[in-house]
Amino acid sequence: MEIAQLLERAQSVKTHALTLTAAQKNEILCEMADTLLENAQRIMTANEQDMQKAKSQISETMLDRLMLNLSRIEGMAQGLRALTLLEDPIGQELSHVQRPNGLVIRRVRVPMGVVAVIYESRPNVTSDAAGLCLKSGNVCVLRGGREALATNREIVKALHAALERTGHPCELVQLVEDTGREGAAALMQARGKVDLLIPRGGKGLIQACVEQAKVPCIETGTGICHIYVDEAADLSMALEIVDNAKTSRPSVCNAAEVCLVHASCAEAFLPMLKERMELKRTELRLCPRAAKIIEGTTAGPQDFDTEFLDYVLAVKVVEDLPEALAHIRSHSTGHSEAIVTSNEQTAQRFMDGVDSAAVYVNASTRFTDGGEFGLGCEMGISTQKLGARGPMGLCELTSYQYRILGSGQVR
Amino acid sequence: MEIAQLLERAQSVKTHALTLTAAQKNEILCEMADTLLENAQRIMTANEQDMQKAKSQISETMLDRLMLNLSRIEGMAQGLRALTLLEDPIGQELSHVQRPNGLVIRRVRVPMGVVAVIYESRPNVTSDAAGLCLKSGNVCVLRGGREALATNREIVKALHAALERTGHPCELVQLVEDTGREGAAALMQARGKVDLLIPRGGKGLIQACVEQAKVPCIETGTGICHIYVDEAADLSMALEIVDNAKTSRPSVCNAAEVCLVHASCAEAFLPMLKERMELKRTELRLCPRAAKIIEGTTAGPQDFDTEFLDYVLAVKVVEDLPEALAHIRSHSTGHSEAIVTSNEQTAQRFMDGVDSAAVYVNASTRFTDGGEFGLGCEMGISTQKLGARGPMGLCELTSYQYRILGSGQVR
Repeated sequence: MEIAQLLERAQSVKTHALTLTAAQKNEILCEMADTLLENAQRIMTANEQDMQKAKSQISETMLDRLMLNLSRIEGMAQGLRALTLLEDPIGQELSHVQRPNGLVIRRVRVPMGVVAVIYESRPNVTSDAAGLCLKSGNVCVLRGGREALATNREIVKALHAALERTGHPCELVQLVEDTGREGAAALMQARGKVDLLIPRGGKGLIQACVEQAKVPCIETGTGICHIYVDEAADLSMALEIVDNAKTSRPSVCNAAEVCLVHASCAEAFLPMLKERMELKRTELRLCPRAAKIIEGTTAGPQDFDTEFLDYVLAVKVVEDLPEALAHIRSHSTGHSEAIVTSNEQTAQRFMDGVDSAAVYVNASTRFTDGGEFGLGCEMGISTQKLGARGPMGLCELTSYQYRILGSGQVR
Repeated sequence: MEIAQLLERAQSVKTHALTLTAAQKNEILCEMADTLLENAQRIMTANEQDMQKAKSQISETMLDRLMLNLSRIEGMAQGLRALTLLEDPIGQELSHVQRPNGLVIRRVRVPMGVVAVIYESRPNVTSDAAGLCLKSGNVCVLRGGREALATNREIVKALHAALERTGHPCELVQLVEDTGREGAAALMQARGKVDLLIPRGGKGLIQACVEQAKVPCIETGTGICHIYVDEAADLSMALEIVDNAKTSRPSVCNAAEVCLVHASCAEAFLPMLKERMELKRTELRLCPRAAKIIEGTTAGPQDFDTEFLDYVLAVKVVEDLPEALAHIRSHSTGHSEAIVTSNEQTAQRFMDGVDSAAVYVNASTRFTDGGEFGLGCEMGISTQKLGARGPMGLCELTSYQYRILGSGQVR
């Protein structure tokens, strides 16, 4: 189907999605979990075909992301069931005033409308995104990676079976078959037809959206996260935090890429850091000052602007807090930053001076996550300030509408 | 000054703006009101120069928008003082949770950062926008119309005098001297330097922003607003509401441009409407069905997609509520729509089916306004769903940041 036609269909069921009750949405979600499991064998067969085709073209890591087995499909079903436990955000009254002229002005939470999601190889995103959009009253249009097309088709077929069984239109969840650049570009340009575009993927995809998108768009996921070890830091706490933020899962966006160290504790801290990072087989890329204190690779010009997503940590010694803040302002992607300090005033100055979605005092950046924040789920981490910021749960997929009740008022 | 340099300066005082206390902001606002009045004569002299230059080039209406006299300058000063009475939105805690691991996660309201405003001839916007940005903790970069440049320079000089007297950096409020297209384009493209762009102006400006902007942008102000007179409407109430929405101030964005009438009351309502609109010297542009009932100009193909901003009203007879909703969905700009009905279920279906910032039951669309909504002030009316929607007061110029306090937590 042409994307324009598919978006028209999506637009046509917006009111249906908005007016679904919480009970109806939960019924659909449970049914979707069931139909995913009932169709697990077909999904896995399609996934095997995708894997065969992709084998010669993509890396081991990418292949692992693409792969589905029964346990992963069970996880997807479980994810859908978990959404039924969350509160329905739609219809919530955000404010309510009665004006002197008698007008009652209510600000009511409404869905964004048609949410398009562009993502890469992981097919579990297909059911996750569909479930999140459904529960938040949105219609979704999903455009997964080319290498996962057969798998995604079977997943969406299973989701459609659930919509049919519960008597709701299949247009609530649609898959874009055009997995080429044109498909993505058509979504980015579909003004008035896509109410929100969420690109989930690497730097290239996000950049393409920034350059080309004419529809409202939320940038997600690029994280050059910093840990600043202050002069008033508990150095053993700092070591655990840097270690965790760097090495517990280097491939994710909330992992740290850069450690800034106050000059007054650099001589004490850097040898500790070097020892621990050797244990964790993590390479250090050092600024000239750090290189005078410990051994390691000298940092190149790009090392403080790279999301390594790997066992690599850039290290820089700074003279003071203002230098740390200036460095972060120039190099951060606005995701998550942390300070380790026991000085409350310094912590406050750090929070005021850092313009990122999440800012931590004495904790690892790895906590920037919908589940860890108590949102129960997550569509991604927004690194922008317009609209949702930080982890995007159900509320972050909504807007609001003023609903004004009068009795003939004129102005 | 080059725009890049000006934006660097603006960025450099973001933390200063964010950390201003409410008392400091109010002191600056009062001082700005004083310096505007102290410099009224210089501002009026500059305004006369602007008026002389513009006289041969722009219309009477535009000239009136450009004109400042003492009473208008007093109004600007009063606008700044009025802001001191509003609550400071910055630092408000929007949520606060303590997680089982002991992390305290606070969602705190923060400014957007550097807000750029592109506007047209009215010079009062210069002080209004500066005041709104200051009170909401933002740094502002103002780019007014070419024809108001001398006036705007004097206004900004007066505002700077107030910043100097109170000991704050003048970079908090800056004027872009390049009033050509390049100046606007440079702001639209300044990724990472403009945190929010607000175009205030006509369709051409908004369209240019949609096409060119690479910075976060809020579309404001285009309003093709509809009034739907339902079969269950009190027709005399409907007449007053349509009359008010159309004729009380046709040049503003919340004025109605289109009246939809249910077929079952068209024969009764349209003659009433024709009589009243003749009294108000308002031209009707009629769909074929309406033209069978009353006399008037036949509507052309563009008449249901035009923001007339004038004494012109397009009229269409619809068979039922779904046809009214379908028409609104195809032709609305997402600003404000109203239904006149005494049927509560119909009213609910109308609100659920209309995807606009404000939706009215039995009241005029003219109430979509920051003052009327009780926000105390307004930067414009957002017609988009990402970020602020509807009237933009102080809170609508803010974002939020997660501030997480730990004691060494790792994941």
